Amino acid sequence: MNNFTYHNPTKIIFGEGTIATISHEIPKDARILMTFGGGSIKENGIYEQVKNALKAFTLFEFGGIEANPQYSTLMKAVDLCRTENISFILAVGGGSVLDGSKFIATAVFFEGEPWDILEKNAKTSKFVPLAAVLTLPATGSEMNGFAVISRKETGQKLAFGRPPFTNPKFSMLDPAVTKTLSPRQRGNGVVDAFIHTTEQYMTFPSNSPVQDRYAEALLKTLIEVGPVYFTEPENMEAAKNLMWAATMALNGIISCGVPVDWATHSIGHELTVLQGIDHGRTLAIVWPGMMRVMRDTKREKLLQFACRVWGITDGTDDEKIDTAIAKTEEFFHSVGVPTRLSDYQLGKEVIGKVVENLKKNGFTALGEKRLVTPEKVEEILLDRL
Amino acid sequence: MNNFTYHNPTKIIFGEGTIATISHEIPKDARILMTFGGGSIKENGIYEQVKNALKAFTLFEFGGIEANPQYSTLMKAVDLCRTENISFILAVGGGSVLDGSKFIATAVFFEGEPWDILEKNAKTSKFVPLAAVLTLPATGSEMNGFAVISRKETGQKLAFGRPPFTNPKFSMLDPAVTKTLSPRQRGNGVVDAFIHTTEQYMTFPSNSPVQDRYAEALLKTLIEVGPVYFTEPENMEAAKNLMWAATMALNGIISCGVPVDWATHSIGHELTVLQGIDHGRTLAIVWPGMMRVMRDTKREKLLQFACRVWGITDGTDDEKIDTAIAKTEEFFHSVGVPTRLSDYQLGKEVIGKVVENLKKNGFTALGEKRLVTPEKVEEILLDRL
Repeated sequence: MNNFTYHNPTKIIFGEGTIATISHEIPKDARILMTFGGGSIKENGIYEQVKNALKAFTLFEFGGIEANPQYSTLMKAVDLCRTENISFILAVGGGSVLDGSKFIATAVFFEGEPWDILEKNAKTSKFVPLAAVLTLPATGSEMNGFAVISRKETGQKLAFGRPPFTNPKFSMLDPAVTKTLSPRQRGNGVVDAFIHTTEQYMTFPSNSPVQDRYAEALLKTLIEVGPVYFTEPENMEAAKNLMWAATMALNGIISCGVPVDWATHSIGHELTVLQGIDHGRTLAIVWPGMMRVMRDTKREKLLQFACRVWGITDGTDDEKIDTAIAKTEEFFHSVGVPTRLSDYQLGKEVIGKVVENLKKNGFTALGEKRLVTPEKVEEILLDRL
Repeated sequence: MNNFTYHNPTKIIFGEGTIATISHEIPKDARILMTFGGGSIKENGIYEQVKNALKAFTLFEFGGIEANPQYSTLMKAVDLCRTENISFILAVGGGSVLDGSKFIATAVFFEGEPWDILEKNAKTSKFVPLAAVLTLPATGSEMNGFAVISRKETGQKLAFGRPPFTNPKFSMLDPAVTKTLSPRQRGNGVVDAFIHTTEQYMTFPSNSPVQDRYAEALLKTLIEVGPVYFTEPENMEAAKNLMWAATMALNGIISCGVPVDWATHSIGHELTVLQGIDHGRTLAIVWPGMMRVMRDTKREKLLQFACRVWGITDGTDDEKIDTAIAKTEEFFHSVGVPTRLSDYQLGKEVIGKVVENLKKNGFTALGEKRLVTPEKVEEILLDRL
């Protein structure tokens, strides 16, 4: 285990009916900007719930934060924050709204071009406090200080974080919000949480048994609960466990002191930028190829995954690995998520573009050992035709 | 899973050589009170390390906080804080020093008799910020807001907490500090962490698969690493994993939304008060009896424990449970911790006294279902002769 620092001050308020208590958590004199997405919260009642709970506050609204939140959109919210002296941001949404709001909270007091925060890791020193009402379990953004922001004009999708300042002060996790999610949103969320876990687990052994077993705990739970959550929107026990597993998958606990990968995410981001494929769905395409092509550097962890997560004990080592990858693909299919480029009518032609974009963004040596070169990316995606 | 709130702002700084960085974490103008125990930190070099790291600060010292920290001792430190306008408490020690310091931090600004904080859960509103340099992995106090304080004069040992205000702002976890611990301190720490985990796990099923598997992850790690840590003081890999497991065992994550027990602790506390037996050692005495006597209310979790933690698959259900309890006792023995009253030359005569004390302190219906009555306590301790 390597040395590490862990600091996660986000307060989690978990359970059905918790949204009504939100006013207790925000300073009385706050000028609140409520951020949200495409308006689904107006259809499912969450918008009304939040507005009712915040009647006593000065409340502004900024809707229209899209999936893969766009820099140009977020900068409009930054202007609004500056004009209206916003002192608290309440993000009501899924990972995109939360990520976008973290960027808004960071950009408001930034002097200069805020894109530099993403592209040049520019120094930041003052932040608008923010909090979240989660409406879609998937990204884990509700309990960490990180975000991914996109810029259509330049074809970029970049990550940043300023924890603990960009951690939500609190996050309301009410499993009832999942009742109105589409099957597609559910399936994507399950896969996203699963791959978040493997990015921090499927690397090489570092003698970190707590972190390994915590990761395996999440993977097993997602495999067990994911298909139930996918098919039974009214099953609140499944929703609770899925929601909590997704939060735990990216709150930093399982990555304390261990090597991390994130190559599947980097490649997936390019598929989203180039082809508009949902984030979770890009991961399901890339992951099986990543495991197959990088099997030698990941061999010990792949065997551990096969044995401890899938209970596979028969066959040669390579057979065990192949079976574990195949079972994982079946699991993705069981929550309605396809795993091949051809499922999106894409062929070889896209591969060169992905590799080009990665190079352009400086991602030429990805993964826990920096061994995922452009050549490997090509090999990985050829496996996914 | 029940509704819950989780908020743990303690910053963990983990790794060898981290103590030297402590000055970065404390406000420059702080008037620091460094609290410690019987002086072992002066022998093992930690005292010097901390003093060197804090040269630039106004530093006061308060040594002599004993195991099972005593109210009368702590009140002397409270006086010192008041006289010297202390603005930051740095606890350098194990669970007793940390717990004692949490009480000091709470009592300084309390108007009235501070024992009321413990006995009457008196309202508190202002706290001295505190932080910790952990010297003995065991109690988990380094990442929670709770403490247990004793009062010899009245024969009481009571718990309190005011999280997040009594959470350490930061805790330095340097595994190298364990090198000079005695075998007895090591063994006690392993058992303490193990029982902290079972208190939050060995209850009844609540459909909380993440929490269950996290608890099992800790138990399996302690079983695997504990004996190595016990016998190899120079093995820093074992020390790291033991230290991290002990912290995770009581930082609140595994108890989110699940029923908890704590009856073994309540009974153990009385054995400490009456007989002066080390805290961890009292737990090893009580636990096997608790599991045997309460096996019906804990049956499903005991079977899950037998299967998932010990890999027991043969025999009837009761045989599986008996084997799991026997194996756990063997594990306690493997880290040098005895498990019977007779190991301390105690017989039946102590049982009545424990039961009397529990009644006097109002603990007449313990455990996750309040079914551990005085009669059950007697039965449990009769099993432990």
